[in-house]
Amino acid sequence: MRSLRHLSRASAQFSSRTQNNSFLRGAMRWQKDYSTKQFASRSDGLPGIDVSKLSITTNKNPKQLLPPNELVFGKNFTDHMLMVPWNIEDGWLAPEIVPYGPLSLDPSTCVFHYAFECFEGMKAYRDKDGGIRLFRPSKNMERLNNSSRRIALPTADGDAVIKLIGELVKLDKRFIPNERGYSLYLRPTMIGTQATLGVSAPGSALLFVIASPVGPYYPTGFKAISLEATDYAVRAWPGGVGDKKLGANYAPCIVPQLEAASRGFQQNLWLFGEEEYVTEVGTMNLFIALKNKETGQNELITAPLDGTILEGVTRDSVLTLARERLGPRGWTVSERKLKMAEVAEAASEGRLIEVFGAGTAAIVSPVRTISWKGQLVDCGLKKDEEAGQVALEMKNWIEGIQYGDDNHPWRYVLALPLVGIYPY
Amino acid sequence: MRSLRHLSRASAQFSSRTQNNSFLRGAMRWQKDYSTKQFASRSDGLPGIDVSKLSITTNKNPKQLLPPNELVFGKNFTDHMLMVPWNIEDGWLAPEIVPYGPLSLDPSTCVFHYAFECFEGMKAYRDKDGGIRLFRPSKNMERLNNSSRRIALPTADGDAVIKLIGELVKLDKRFIPNERGYSLYLRPTMIGTQATLGVSAPGSALLFVIASPVGPYYPTGFKAISLEATDYAVRAWPGGVGDKKLGANYAPCIVPQLEAASRGFQQNLWLFGEEEYVTEVGTMNLFIALKNKETGQNELITAPLDGTILEGVTRDSVLTLARERLGPRGWTVSERKLKMAEVAEAASEGRLIEVFGAGTAAIVSPVRTISWKGQLVDCGLKKDEEAGQVALEMKNWIEGIQYGDDNHPWRYVLALPLVGIYPY
Repeated sequence: MRSLRHLSRASAQFSSRTQNNSFLRGAMRWQKDYSTKQFASRSDGLPGIDVSKLSITTNKNPKQLLPPNELVFGKNFTDHMLMVPWNIEDGWLAPEIVPYGPLSLDPSTCVFHYAFECFEGMKAYRDKDGGIRLFRPSKNMERLNNSSRRIALPTADGDAVIKLIGELVKLDKRFIPNERGYSLYLRPTMIGTQATLGVSAPGSALLFVIASPVGPYYPTGFKAISLEATDYAVRAWPGGVGDKKLGANYAPCIVPQLEAASRGFQQNLWLFGEEEYVTEVGTMNLFIALKNKETGQNELITAPLDGTILEGVTRDSVLTLARERLGPRGWTVSERKLKMAEVAEAASEGRLIEVFGAGTAAIVSPVRTISWKGQLVDCGLKKDEEAGQVALEMKNWIEGIQYGDDNHPWRYVLALPLVGIYPY
Repeated sequence: MRSLRHLSRASAQFSSRTQNNSFLRGAMRWQKDYSTKQFASRSDGLPGIDVSKLSITTNKNPKQLLPPNELVFGKNFTDHMLMVPWNIEDGWLAPEIVPYGPLSLDPSTCVFHYAFECFEGMKAYRDKDGGIRLFRPSKNMERLNNSSRRIALPTADGDAVIKLIGELVKLDKRFIPNERGYSLYLRPTMIGTQATLGVSAPGSALLFVIASPVGPYYPTGFKAISLEATDYAVRAWPGGVGDKKLGANYAPCIVPQLEAASRGFQQNLWLFGEEEYVTEVGTMNLFIALKNKETGQNELITAPLDGTILEGVTRDSVLTLARERLGPRGWTVSERKLKMAEVAEAASEGRLIEVFGAGTAAIVSPVRTISWKGQLVDCGLKKDEEAGQVALEMKNWIEGIQYGDDNHPWRYVLALPLVGIYPY
């Protein structure tokens, strides 16, 4: 096990950017670097996932497909699910694809009591050639392992899990609609399954993957949303777990979302610290495009990965594409802290170009206004506009990769021939 | 819905105690008061729990009782469990006591993904007259409602739940060993049961209670533990949910506990802020008895309820009994912030009297040493001592109430005659 005090890049970055800030300087002085990468995985040294041991039990009662326009996110599931059990004696056991159905768990199981649970969100797309693609699945596997390690659940070989997910997707491929914007949402989930109430590292776990066909987030084109800045609750903090995709980070976010909704806002915006740094929006990362006050240059800004921000795959994709494709057009692309007051100032000075959320569900989600301290900050869209230029381009670029128009290295095309064992 | 800005007592207390402290003054400036008591419960206006609708299905395969010395905390359960389902249309449905057995839940159920879960820990005791007692159960019910409200789960009438728990306990009373120090651990748990992946307030939930016979935490008398101060991870934050008994607060604590254990410490001690305030220990509150540097008086200190501390029932009991019974002997009893450096200083100056954790499992858990910044802080026990005077007295006082020697107002004696419907 390496030293706990090894200073990570993210932490160093956070420090250097906050050195003129008394509160966060205080926070950082005492916040030693805490990266779970320093910890051994509990599954190290135990047998890993053996893809060759996969068994498939096909569903004898295949579901009827819903008309694509009736699909609701995460409500309808395919015929099968993937299950890979683990325990501390035997490591990962043989993977199984079985008919979709309930989990039967003792009421003392630790997932019900202590939130031993983490997950991923990813999608399978039907490309223009009829093939099936995933989008940067190794990023999801890396994050899943970072999440599970942080809560003493086992880690797994990402390539093996991707292969198994591929088999599930191929088996249930009839559920992926052909239409552009549609996809098969995949939910890899890991839960602790030990059935005792002692608060300790689970001796057993289950990795399962379920799949839900979904339509476009904006079926009739973009619809810009309005946000309420939340200044009375905190989602994440230095030394906490806000950068991991743990179940624990989600339930506490609902009440602030309901509060925002009760006042007519679609999402809440999480601020941090007395400086009210802009962090995340609801369940998405946030991007702000503005004309920089000092340089006059266009700048696309998102919060840095300081341990309090979810490390979004779409966030990373937007940043990379922006550096690659907006950079040559004179844009600066920054991962840096930005105060809500700076956003409001840019708006009042006509320098705020556009604001959008970024996540797997919507790719990008344009923002019209942010309610903050009794004012409505106008995020730069014209009255008849539902999305800014950067959001539009990003959606097209990322969709182009997802659906195969752009043969980008991020593609992951499922190996053909598709499995023939299931009579569809 | 009342104003969000209403200043709570706890928050005011926190402010006044930290006014000379730059870091926390900063933290408090931006931390608006955030008390879930300001929010309406999602179950308001819907039918509440109707105890008269309780149905009981007895277990046809009663378990064999384990010898008391083979009982392991939270591993063996009684014959029955209590289940009370809820949904947003019908409110609380008819309560059921059914044979203990697995829960069957769709893999998309929100408890697996977003940690919609909270719980309580309480115990039933067989008193010296053969009756069965609970200990301050209304405190647990109050906290359960505060927890569930914070994560958009329903609240319930505490008296109704206590009555139902009483019926479960009476039905399974044969599992409560007669011996002093033994009890029936009760685990009321609430989980979100909606089976969709959208991140939103659950439309359905389940309150269940399971029961596990347990032996004394220290079967052969106290055994003082050693702690490792954790300065590389943070359990809770102002504006967060660290004062609620949510599953979300537990899984992230395991890795620091494993770390402490790997270096030979039984528990970790959570510090907060650059001042390294002493907060909680593992899954217990912490009490420090010292001779006050300024007054020379004996002082029993625990961290104040500032939103970052679990509001322990045992914590409250220790405070109340200390004020009532140690006060007249010249002790000051304080809920105030205390730096780890002050603890170390008191130890080095011979002013540290004793340190102990407080929780439902052990009542009190004496501490011998705390590892902090490369030094071992000696917590005042003599070499051949396993507990200090205050811890010993507290254990005796609280056990006296729990087992009925002391007919204290905190007793809750289950109504007799005990139910006769089950043939034991």
